[in-house]
Amino acid sequence: MIKLVLLDVDGTITDPGRLISLRAIEAIRKVQNDGVIVSLASGNVIPVMYGVKTFVGVKAPVFAENGGAMFQNDNITPFFSMDMPKRLFEKLESEEKLKGILSNKWRLTSMAYVPVEGHQAEITSEAESEGLVTVDSGFSWHLLNRGQDKGFALEKLKEIYSLDYDEILVMGDSYNDAPMFKKDVVKAVPANAEESLKTIADHITKEGNGDGVAEILLNLRSL
Amino acid sequence: MIKLVLLDVDGTITDPGRLISLRAIEAIRKVQNDGVIVSLASGNVIPVMYGVKTFVGVKAPVFAENGGAMFQNDNITPFFSMDMPKRLFEKLESEEKLKGILSNKWRLTSMAYVPVEGHQAEITSEAESEGLVTVDSGFSWHLLNRGQDKGFALEKLKEIYSLDYDEILVMGDSYNDAPMFKKDVVKAVPANAEESLKTIADHITKEGNGDGVAEILLNLRSL
Repeated sequence: MIKLVLLDVDGTITDPGRLISLRAIEAIRKVQNDGVIVSLASGNVIPVMYGVKTFVGVKAPVFAENGGAMFQNDNITPFFSMDMPKRLFEKLESEEKLKGILSNKWRLTSMAYVPVEGHQAEITSEAESEGLVTVDSGFSWHLLNRGQDKGFALEKLKEIYSLDYDEILVMGDSYNDAPMFKKDVVKAVPANAEESLKTIADHITKEGNGDGVAEILLNLRSL
Repeated sequence: MIKLVLLDVDGTITDPGRLISLRAIEAIRKVQNDGVIVSLASGNVIPVMYGVKTFVGVKAPVFAENGGAMFQNDNITPFFSMDMPKRLFEKLESEEKLKGILSNKWRLTSMAYVPVEGHQAEITSEAESEGLVTVDSGFSWHLLNRGQDKGFALEKLKEIYSLDYDEILVMGDSYNDAPMFKKDVVKAVPANAEESLKTIADHITKEGNGDGVAEILLNLRSL
């Protein structure tokens, strides 16, 4: 039986234009009332996730910066350091290989960027030689500490709620969701997901984005 | 004819528990598609308002910190200084007359607080003697620069869109919404609004919170 659902935000509970799905919000509120734990993991920053958590009404901790920081009960818990992502970001920025995005102002454990054309392979290789990783969330690229991903967030939730893997369902659409798909959990993707996620998913919804989320959440018991 | 609607967030498009109203989001999206400009003004911080703007899909600039800062097209525009609110906040905090709240971490032009019991009158009086003001948003108190209020936000929007007062409708439920009710605009309140706002409102909705917002937005032409 699924006791916890971990959802990606952009492209999963939102449409491609980032409009949040009213059907997804409604379904999240409903399954929470039925006792299912719902959490969110995003590449976005803590204050944005604090807003989403508050206004959607998500009761469990939520994760920002691809699992790098957690928010619950007015507490921000960063699990990784900003030191190395920031140092490399500043070097690459001064070399004009990437540009930062607005939300970096509020980041605690990673940096987000848009690569200057032709430079992404180089950025990834430099990141790896520094013990860092890069990932594309579908909305921007992220420069992260090794081990900082949504799989890490999933392990935190598993520990907090003392769950088994098969009691957890994950749902996401993009490359930065892959680490939570590598766990032995139940895996769902909306119709718009990357092919690489679809090939390992247990459930591919008929509809895309938030409509797909609602489709999964409202049928949790029959999965 | 109403061309622009300026809405409060907490207690107006959300319920008392801060859950955002799906009917309000739906109505905002609909009237925007019909050509009405919708903006939001909140006591909350820029990154939270950036999230709300993005996920709800509000197209016009939005205002944080009770009108103290504006967000549009990835640009943050602070209209006031943090100097005096921060200095007085730190003094009052060290005297144990107030406690800060989490979102102060992201503030640019004001400070938010919870007064220590029995000290609010004193805080207001000290603020006034320093040329500052205090206001209760219904969710926390705010220490603001003089002139920093939602009436200021309304004037900015009026200027940006070259509108007359009678082409603007404002809607809010609490004390920090009063400054936009003092303008010669069309004034609506949800059923849950403070009595002081109800007495000057042109329209009091039958329903409260977001349901009231939907009631107004979906009947703009017949107001």
